Amino acid sequence: MHIPDIVPIAEPSLAQHLQHLINQKTKPLGSLGKLEQLAQQIGLILQNPQPPALHAHALIFAADHGVMDEQVSAFPQSVTWQMVENFLAGGAAINVFAKQNNCGLQIVDAGVKHDFGVRDGLLDRKIAYGSQNLARQAAMTSAQCEQALQAGMEIVASLNCHVLLLGEMGIGNTTVASALMHKITALPLAQCVGAGTGVDSAGIAHKQQVIARAMQTHQTASSALEILACLGGFEVAMMVGAILAAAHARKIIVIDGFIVSSALLVARLLQPAVQDYCVFAHCSDESGHRAMLNYMQADPLLALNLRLGEGSGAALALPLLHASRNFLV
Amino acid sequence: MHIPDIVPIAEPSLAQHLQHLINQKTKPLGSLGKLEQLAQQIGLILQNPQPPALHAHALIFAADHGVMDEQVSAFPQSVTWQMVENFLAGGAAINVFAKQNNCGLQIVDAGVKHDFGVRDGLLDRKIAYGSQNLARQAAMTSAQCEQALQAGMEIVASLNCHVLLLGEMGIGNTTVASALMHKITALPLAQCVGAGTGVDSAGIAHKQQVIARAMQTHQTASSALEILACLGGFEVAMMVGAILAAAHARKIIVIDGFIVSSALLVARLLQPAVQDYCVFAHCSDESGHRAMLNYMQADPLLALNLRLGEGSGAALALPLLHASRNFLV
Repeated sequence: MHIPDIVPIAEPSLAQHLQHLINQKTKPLGSLGKLEQLAQQIGLILQNPQPPALHAHALIFAADHGVMDEQVSAFPQSVTWQMVENFLAGGAAINVFAKQNNCGLQIVDAGVKHDFGVRDGLLDRKIAYGSQNLARQAAMTSAQCEQALQAGMEIVASLNCHVLLLGEMGIGNTTVASALMHKITALPLAQCVGAGTGVDSAGIAHKQQVIARAMQTHQTASSALEILACLGGFEVAMMVGAILAAAHARKIIVIDGFIVSSALLVARLLQPAVQDYCVFAHCSDESGHRAMLNYMQADPLLALNLRLGEGSGAALALPLLHASRNFLV
Repeated sequence: MHIPDIVPIAEPSLAQHLQHLINQKTKPLGSLGKLEQLAQQIGLILQNPQPPALHAHALIFAADHGVMDEQVSAFPQSVTWQMVENFLAGGAAINVFAKQNNCGLQIVDAGVKHDFGVRDGLLDRKIAYGSQNLARQAAMTSAQCEQALQAGMEIVASLNCHVLLLGEMGIGNTTVASALMHKITALPLAQCVGAGTGVDSAGIAHKQQVIARAMQTHQTASSALEILACLGGFEVAMMVGAILAAAHARKIIVIDGFIVSSALLVARLLQPAVQDYCVFAHCSDESGHRAMLNYMQADPLLALNLRLGEGSGAALALPLLHASRNFLV
């Protein structure tokens, strides 16, 4: 399959011009801290020292996970589709935060074990009714993995926005993200596995055992796409495609929490420069997230102890992107 | 003078009701982290489990400081009035951030060494053309101190808003805040003094020496009002009054950076419960701020390495207050 080339955003003359504009503001040099770096990044991504008002759009990718056969979550699998219904009804935190911040919102069915029918605000890109159990076999076939990547790329290609916020919903997907993190970063399993939506310490130990088995099952997987097919859920694979296409289209990508960050771990294996296009919204309360961010040398904007997913942290960080653009122009 | 009594916000039955409402949302318990605590606090301050949309207003208090005779800043004193002109012309960061967040904005001349005349957006509550040099004598008389407190209280009493954001402008006022911090917290001088708008390490050592002299000069000052009169600038004293009146009127008070936090240090000596009404917007890059926040056991929302003052951090935190209220109702 065709993975688009992503070029780094560095452009010395534009960077210098942006720094000059930032320094010319009536304030002590550097006194706006991270917002100055963010203004630089926005200007470089959009290749515009006077960026327009930022239009933002959130995509929430939902899918189910075969690894739920291993009882890795405090919630039953049906919560995935119930939460999708909640998103569609406007009743979730992401609906509130997206509305507050004038941010478009679409839900993508990447592979939920449920039939939603045709619905406003829902994109049906279902690959299958949930993935397979990664502890025993590949979560998806390589054809499904490519199909998911392709879908993520196509959805983003059709969007007209400067800023893409990514979020997800999928009961069981912290196990998926932990497995991807452990495989890709080689950090100790204990650093990669946390409580997810709220399992206890026995539950965490169990998740570790399940992932240890998955590592055995998939020990020969070595390329990014093999790792993704073996371990990744459909929503993660689709987000990998979305990240690649968004960077290719020079959009600003707002990375939410632990699961979205795991999709970026895969995307940057394929195209390291994608990270240049990413703004890290927050460090979540999921215990592996800090280590994952450190591995990527990423400096998140917020630390609010969120562990909700669904793009909530990305939406909460959006006003800081607006602020960075607004003080620059 | 009359200092209003401030009652703690704790109200067990309302707190329980709020927690119930928060837990009933379709999300894992506690998964919105600090926003859940903020929603609790907002509900308790406003004594309303379904708070209305939050109206916010920012007051930026400006004054000059006699301690500038000691060369404690990288900028000349005239920058104070020039920045006030900049605020009035709409050209500063706080103008941008207040506008973005639909936040009212007024500048208060608490004691700037300049005549502005009658101007839109400027409240003339000038106590004097700058304070006296705190290294040698009291920064203000006790009558001036009371006058400043009274002015701060009156300004806030006339405001119609749920949320009060505090900010300041005053070349030399990190020295004032450091002196107040050292006197009140008894933390080592080295922990209290930082670079301000940008002095070098020799400049920091000099600020420490100036404050050490001030401690000698004012060693007998012991009450909150004596300490404030000896060390505090007019903008700090006026913010102390504003904090007291805002808590008394059950407003949510958004504390900006190092200088505003030093005003709170004084206000909580007078009325410890004022802190219940305070939301800590951010931990600034000014080196003493983290220790000051720790001293108050305060947990700020943002950490963006800001060191600008002028209420910029408070305005940037405002969307998080809206988000907390919005998910609750």
